[in-house]
Amino acid sequence: MRSPDELRALVDEYLADLALTPELQGQAESVRYALVGGKRVRAVICLATAEAAGADAERALPAGAALELVHAFSLVHDDLPALDNDAERRGRPSAWAEFGEAVAVLAGDALLAEAFRLALSYPSPHVGRELAQATLGMIGGQYLDVTGTAPDEATLHKLKTGCLFAASVGLALWVVEIPEREQAAWRAFGDELGLLFQIVDDILDGDGYVLTHGADGARALADQAAARARARLAEVPADTSVLEDIVDGLATRTS
Amino acid sequence: MRSPDELRALVDEYLADLALTPELQGQAESVRYALVGGKRVRAVICLATAEAAGADAERALPAGAALELVHAFSLVHDDLPALDNDAERRGRPSAWAEFGEAVAVLAGDALLAEAFRLALSYPSPHVGRELAQATLGMIGGQYLDVTGTAPDEATLHKLKTGCLFAASVGLALWVVEIPEREQAAWRAFGDELGLLFQIVDDILDGDGYVLTHGADGARALADQAAARARARLAEVPADTSVLEDIVDGLATRTS
Repeated sequence: MRSPDELRALVDEYLADLALTPELQGQAESVRYALVGGKRVRAVICLATAEAAGADAERALPAGAALELVHAFSLVHDDLPALDNDAERRGRPSAWAEFGEAVAVLAGDALLAEAFRLALSYPSPHVGRELAQATLGMIGGQYLDVTGTAPDEATLHKLKTGCLFAASVGLALWVVEIPEREQAAWRAFGDELGLLFQIVDDILDGDGYVLTHGADGARALADQAAARARARLAEVPADTSVLEDIVDGLATRTS
Repeated sequence: MRSPDELRALVDEYLADLALTPELQGQAESVRYALVGGKRVRAVICLATAEAAGADAERALPAGAALELVHAFSLVHDDLPALDNDAERRGRPSAWAEFGEAVAVLAGDALLAEAFRLALSYPSPHVGRELAQATLGMIGGQYLDVTGTAPDEATLHKLKTGCLFAASVGLALWVVEIPEREQAAWRAFGDELGLLFQIVDDILDGDGYVLTHGADGARALADQAAARARARLAEVPADTSVLEDIVDGLATRTS
């Protein structure tokens, strides 16, 4: 089994070489731009889950890439002036600041459609189905965020961040064709990852959970989320050592 | 076999009753808003193709609805201030004028993801695959339009309008499970529909083909496109009388 860093290198190479649909014409430039950089956390979780479940990580590459494209789509549209109005992303101009708003709207649309193209390269429609559900949950979370109508912090993050993290595990299960009745333990693990990621993100940015729970309170919540993820993982009947490394990495990351 | 008007009523009813993903939360309101009105041409072609190929139109309803959702997604994003800046659509405020730009961006995203959810309700991934390809072609056409970089009128319309019309026939073929080797005659027909629709649209709006070819020139082009569509249809080994009615309706429509 390969380490998280080796899996990340696989994902980076796959995305760099990804053949986009030729009909996208000049739109492809902004799509590629939006795919540069990023930690590839969701794809790495997907590949590591596939390996833990007994398959080659390579089989999960289109699914892992699809998750990264959906994530990139959400960032491109989030950054728009009408939403978060972020002119910078990953140390460079955000897509709208670089290409203009019109092309950035279309870049997000193209990333989402390309994500489904990748998810639909598998023989079964399950990979695409779960990606659609996760994307819709994420969009619902965005809506709650943008309109300030979230009933509570937990609901917001479960939708906005949690859905795509849970799908990072779920897509791999369909890729490897784990029968649905054997998926529950894996999925219980996947359900813990979004919150862990979000709390640590807030600790690094000094917002969100840090504002509501204080620095020490947020750190304690992150440690509890990591402990729950490890406990869930212990119930998965497979060699999950790489996934444990990923949990440790998510809990202790400094960027 | 049912008439185009009967098929349109089926589509309207299906879309009015469509259960959206609950996780969309309050975002569902703008999604429903964007689905009101419209001629449902693409869905009607899809259902009529399915009936001509020997299936119940009802079987093609999720595919036909998916086409209408992709079409609605493209209108919602097109209307945005950064693109066409249209504050009105179908006699009402466009989505951004009604809900604000942020919610309109997310409404388009949600329509696209819901479209894939519908397309993926079939056992085979082919319906979703063809929808993804058509959507990517349409986005490429939008890019050429927005940036003014289309090499010529024909390339622009083939992508921007033609891809989704061709898919209206193509999706039905996959729904009915017509083997790929028997699809060519049907697809040759579908390839003619986008241009016919576009030229008549320009005649009704007094732009596009009317500006480049004059009123009489545009009418002649529309008549030729309709004649080609009828000729292609004559080569399809099935009762295509309802599809002929649709071609006549597209050629002579006044709204």
